[in-house]
Amino acid sequence: MRRSVRLGLVLLFAARFAHADAPQPATLLGFSTERSTAERAIEQQLDQGLHAEDQRAWMKRLSAHPHHLGSPYGKQNAEFIAELYRSFGFDTRIEEFRVLFPTPKLRKLELVAPTSFTASLAEPAIPGDSTSGQTAEMLPPYNVYSIDGDATAELVYVNYGIPSDYDELERRGIDVKGKIVIARYGHSWRGIKPKVAAEHGALACILYSDPADDGYAQGDVYPKGGWRSDHAVQRGSVADAPLRSGDPLTPGIGATADAPRIAIKDAVTLTKIPVLPISYADALPLLRAIGGPVAPESYRGGLPITYHLGPGPAKVHLALAFNWDMATAYDVIATLRGAELPDQWVIRGNHHDAWVHGASDPLSGQVAMLAEAKAIGALAKTGWKPRRTIVYASWDGEEPGLLGSTEWAETHADELRAKAVAYINSDSNARGFLGLGGSHSLEAFLNDVARDVVDPEKGVSVLERTRANQRVTGSADEKREARDRANLRINALGSGSDFTPFLQHLGVASVDVGYGGEEEYGQYHTAYDSFDHFVRFVDPDGAYGVTLAQTGGRIILRLAQADVLPFEFTGFADNVSRYADQVRELADNLRTETEDQSRLIADGSYAQAFDPRHTYVLPKAKDPVPFLNFAPLQNAVAAVQKSAKAFSTAAADRARSGRPYEAAELQNLGQLLIGSERALTRPEGLPGRPWYVHQIYAPGFYTGYGVKTLPGVREAIEARRWDEAAREVEKVAETLRGYAAQIDKATAALGGR
Amino acid sequence: MRRSVRLGLVLLFAARFAHADAPQPATLLGFSTERSTAERAIEQQLDQGLHAEDQRAWMKRLSAHPHHLGSPYGKQNAEFIAELYRSFGFDTRIEEFRVLFPTPKLRKLELVAPTSFTASLAEPAIPGDSTSGQTAEMLPPYNVYSIDGDATAELVYVNYGIPSDYDELERRGIDVKGKIVIARYGHSWRGIKPKVAAEHGALACILYSDPADDGYAQGDVYPKGGWRSDHAVQRGSVADAPLRSGDPLTPGIGATADAPRIAIKDAVTLTKIPVLPISYADALPLLRAIGGPVAPESYRGGLPITYHLGPGPAKVHLALAFNWDMATAYDVIATLRGAELPDQWVIRGNHHDAWVHGASDPLSGQVAMLAEAKAIGALAKTGWKPRRTIVYASWDGEEPGLLGSTEWAETHADELRAKAVAYINSDSNARGFLGLGGSHSLEAFLNDVARDVVDPEKGVSVLERTRANQRVTGSADEKREARDRANLRINALGSGSDFTPFLQHLGVASVDVGYGGEEEYGQYHTAYDSFDHFVRFVDPDGAYGVTLAQTGGRIILRLAQADVLPFEFTGFADNVSRYADQVRELADNLRTETEDQSRLIADGSYAQAFDPRHTYVLPKAKDPVPFLNFAPLQNAVAAVQKSAKAFSTAAADRARSGRPYEAAELQNLGQLLIGSERALTRPEGLPGRPWYVHQIYAPGFYTGYGVKTLPGVREAIEARRWDEAAREVEKVAETLRGYAAQIDKATAALGGR
Repeated sequence: MRRSVRLGLVLLFAARFAHADAPQPATLLGFSTERSTAERAIEQQLDQGLHAEDQRAWMKRLSAHPHHLGSPYGKQNAEFIAELYRSFGFDTRIEEFRVLFPTPKLRKLELVAPTSFTASLAEPAIPGDSTSGQTAEMLPPYNVYSIDGDATAELVYVNYGIPSDYDELERRGIDVKGKIVIARYGHSWRGIKPKVAAEHGALACILYSDPADDGYAQGDVYPKGGWRSDHAVQRGSVADAPLRSGDPLTPGIGATADAPRIAIKDAVTLTKIPVLPISYADALPLLRAIGGPVAPESYRGGLPITYHLGPGPAKVHLALAFNWDMATAYDVIATLRGAELPDQWVIRGNHHDAWVHGASDPLSGQVAMLAEAKAIGALAKTGWKPRRTIVYASWDGEEPGLLGSTEWAETHADELRAKAVAYINSDSNARGFLGLGGSHSLEAFLNDVARDVVDPEKGVSVLERTRANQRVTGSADEKREARDRANLRINALGSGSDFTPFLQHLGVASVDVGYGGEEEYGQYHTAYDSFDHFVRFVDPDGAYGVTLAQTGGRIILRLAQADVLPFEFTGFADNVSRYADQVRELADNLRTETEDQSRLIADGSYAQAFDPRHTYVLPKAKDPVPFLNFAPLQNAVAAVQKSAKAFSTAAADRARSGRPYEAAELQNLGQLLIGSERALTRPEGLPGRPWYVHQIYAPGFYTGYGVKTLPGVREAIEARRWDEAAREVEKVAETLRGYAAQIDKATAALGGR
Repeated sequence: MRRSVRLGLVLLFAARFAHADAPQPATLLGFSTERSTAERAIEQQLDQGLHAEDQRAWMKRLSAHPHHLGSPYGKQNAEFIAELYRSFGFDTRIEEFRVLFPTPKLRKLELVAPTSFTASLAEPAIPGDSTSGQTAEMLPPYNVYSIDGDATAELVYVNYGIPSDYDELERRGIDVKGKIVIARYGHSWRGIKPKVAAEHGALACILYSDPADDGYAQGDVYPKGGWRSDHAVQRGSVADAPLRSGDPLTPGIGATADAPRIAIKDAVTLTKIPVLPISYADALPLLRAIGGPVAPESYRGGLPITYHLGPGPAKVHLALAFNWDMATAYDVIATLRGAELPDQWVIRGNHHDAWVHGASDPLSGQVAMLAEAKAIGALAKTGWKPRRTIVYASWDGEEPGLLGSTEWAETHADELRAKAVAYINSDSNARGFLGLGGSHSLEAFLNDVARDVVDPEKGVSVLERTRANQRVTGSADEKREARDRANLRINALGSGSDFTPFLQHLGVASVDVGYGGEEEYGQYHTAYDSFDHFVRFVDPDGAYGVTLAQTGGRIILRLAQADVLPFEFTGFADNVSRYADQVRELADNLRTETEDQSRLIADGSYAQAFDPRHTYVLPKAKDPVPFLNFAPLQNAVAAVQKSAKAFSTAAADRARSGRPYEAAELQNLGQLLIGSERALTRPEGLPGRPWYVHQIYAPGFYTGYGVKTLPGVREAIEARRWDEAAREVEKVAETLRGYAAQIDKATAALGGR
């Protein structure tokens, strides 16, 4: 379900080596010099076991028919994947979950005034795209977890439909209460749009893809180029994902056959109003019919019209009804038991369900992961055994809301909390640059990995290529870091793929990895995300599928084989220190903005500036922003920095000492390091959303994909809830002090104390 | 010809009062307290003589038929205007000049491959626009001073066609040599586009108006709204105006009947390649047919296509031939002789010729100026006499290249250098905010005026309203200045209207004034800039016509009546100090950019970042930027600051003393102050363009409209001509030292020394 790497990931860049061009370190993080050499030899074997043809054949097989959750071909794919894992030598089972999965029964959208038009709501077959005509097997374009509804009302165009867009409408005196809104995709998780529309009293919500964002304005459209064509519709979930992921009827527990379920009417992650996605061909007549004020510049898309805000005279009738059925999700779980530390699990996952054929999303990542499993399986067949247990997971039901991964994680929560070393995720993959997000305790480790993988187009490491790109095309900050910071700064994770239940619900250190930025995508969640499209526009020779397998394979093998799990905390400390600075700046900037605005209201500037021939509502002065006590947070960050440094020193001393690790020592150190990410969680979770327990990373309540770091503090400030912000500062500070204590225990264990 | 205020003027903000909300000063700059009171009483009478109905009736009469240079109706308009001035009591004459004015004989544009299409090159009548059908009287869309030509070649899309656009094309391996370029209007004087295209070897140049810039993307198109409709074409001059303005055949001298003329082949301001302007309806099939790489994001306009760069497969045939005829320009010059200081002339001007009906451009400004003249004439009929001579000028031939004003200024150059106090220009006028540009020695004076004119929509002063708008919508710098700086910072003048020959060729202190920002224009230089359009979308009740007359009238009356001419130099010193900082920063930034780029080339970043499936040409490292000696400039600026402060102190002391001015004292002071702006010129002019003698303000060699301050220094740095930059620093410093000396003489004269 993840939005393409190109659009979804912002690459950022920590300080382990003195300069950017540091030579390849002889010793891998967590390994002795001798064991590093052995590990690198294993990785050479891994590479020899990776073949682009395997991935291409699997993709062709898996994308031959639509394979959404609950589809016959989806089940066949799960069985095919399970059979592959078995053939690779993995102990494989399919775990089933019963989940709510509504499918469309009625979809109707008509313009009823001032002219009439009936939306096609269909994606025609495209010549040269051999699977686009399989309409009988497809789910038509719809937004899953929209409620049923029938509404007729005037239209209002709300741009991306995020909170700031409604602020702008309010300034222009436009109220969406009792209206139907039309919003363009982008700038948030799609479920945010109906949520915010409903909060403002709208009756229904129409979503469309504007050609400015991924259509002809970006490049030639399919089939000439890869970009979104006029009738292509983005399907997708509109669940209130920032509340929690997973099956709407089994909050917090695994959706096993016999699990207790809440009633559909009590399922809070369903939308409050009906929602339907449409193409820009269907949106054009609606948008053209809207009158009222001309939309502000940032609202204007790429259609050849003047964008107006409304409301009316355009009036639409939207009718939606769904089959509120249950479906079975088939998670394929493949295990290679660890020889020495079987109760430390390294978990790798990628979903297998798609909205339609899903060549890019998710099969590009899925087949790369299968390639890793095959190569690791081949190693095992030579007699090699992993020290720790390796688990490969091919998830079902990711698209509707991370169902397969969430239900599995909830079902096995206790065991995972005790045993999961890390969760490594991928999703869509494409030609281009390395995108890395995850827990910052793994930042240094991931840089080591990226330094050892060669970019297939340029022959330099994927790390160097990505940093080169940042130096050339990045923001001023990125350019500086890509020149001066030793490590690539990895992204903090929000949501949008299967890492969420592991990282943010269980507190398992997680990674999300993929390549992209050189593809022509634009067919996200349409009937044209096909094999034919993929081989022309996404990764023509499959080279980056192999590169992803090399990357994922190294991450898994090193985590499985390391003496000391390759956690490193100075990178985390550097990042969390930035986040602490950011929340202080956020409050400071909000204070200045509030003061400035109050002055402009009081001195009459707004009243004098506004064009009297247009409607403007004078803003109301907001309460001043108080000064908050950030000292507990600053002190806690300082404690983490100190502990992180001490750990690194102890680890280096121990490595220099050459003293081998005893089994009990490894066991103990492993548990302490596994526990470090867990120490970043609090059982009560975040304010208003207890399912999310991680105190450093969460998807934004009003962004959905986009991460909010230090979410409790940051979102309280954004929402101007000062008391809550002050409480959250204390909570985060306490959490970070606990984290520092956990690191100190690991440091002590390293020194044999 | 000036581009609408909304698009063309960037409003900036000097320090005469302690804070922004300073109360109305009791005493006007240059007046004793007593005389201030008398002056304000005169201004009340001025206001009573201003009637919106006059302006509306004159506009209706003057815009009833096309009235371009050389047209029968244009001559009739000149005679009508002359008769008005006579009826107001002005000594009026029409001065005639013979100028080169080519008109189209052949215009043909065809797409010949890969498909065929013939451009309409026509503007159809629009229902509800009563003059749009007068095609027989109109000049069809063309670019005057394009050469004849016939070319068939592949098309390349060059975005705005400015130098940075060609840099981008070069990075993508695209050469326009032997090709025809198509460029969109905007971001430069239109004559820059064929100039730069020819420098890069293009055979011909097509200009079009992209709907992103002033069409449907900005608002509803005519006749529903005021913005550019699909077939509307921007006419206009493509002369190389940054070399000089005026008749191409009489460089530097007045184009009187018997003036010596150069041959057309020797006229350097004509284009080097043929140029034709087209509508977006005609541009669409051409742009759609272009292949090659997808255009970079900043190149993409508002048409519903993927913009490609080419070259080809689109191939076009362009054929242009002109009647290379002479035309007569009719300047109407109306004089009210000064009773006390007849040899100090205050000159006010606005052109009367249009490209077609020109309701906005130029009649909105012309009729406001006529209203001033009527009201001042009415004062004179009561027995009041101006102290200094007032000259009102209605220029002809501004559109082809400031012909009427330039030829008049060149013809009377010696007299003007000796007598002209200031030149006050206006051009198009519209509903909205005050736009002020000019010589910064008049900044404080103009702020006084703007403080006394009431905005018709808001009831506050036009100064306060404009500053309020900057506080609300300005850049960070503008917001800060609009809050903290005592005076509105006025713009430095580039070119684009009739102030250029006065300010930049003769060194007469000049002002350009107008209102705008709330209109729906978009019909610039089309057949639809009509009375019908104006009254619906530009200044519906004519209120801002009256406001402009109040503003212009006050400027003229105060300049004519002041004891001491209201020059004030601390504002100039503040602005020139900024310019000096800017050129130093320009060199510093260029140095850093050059270093950064050289590093990215050397370390392989570019090579690693580029997508190998697209063509990118690795940039070549540029020579390092040396450190330049800016000390002479800094010292000269300090000298001006010191002299400016001393003058202000002396002026205040003298005002406090109450000692009246004797006639000879006034004469002497006047000559010294008139000479101050002249002190900013150098006889040899700017490098490569001797006609432009002003050392502080010039239109940019590669911008045309946009000003380059300290042009000699700035453009040498931009062009990386270091030796020239060093020489120009010395020259500007010497010029500023001379300016300080001139101010010192005026200071001495004030003190009676």
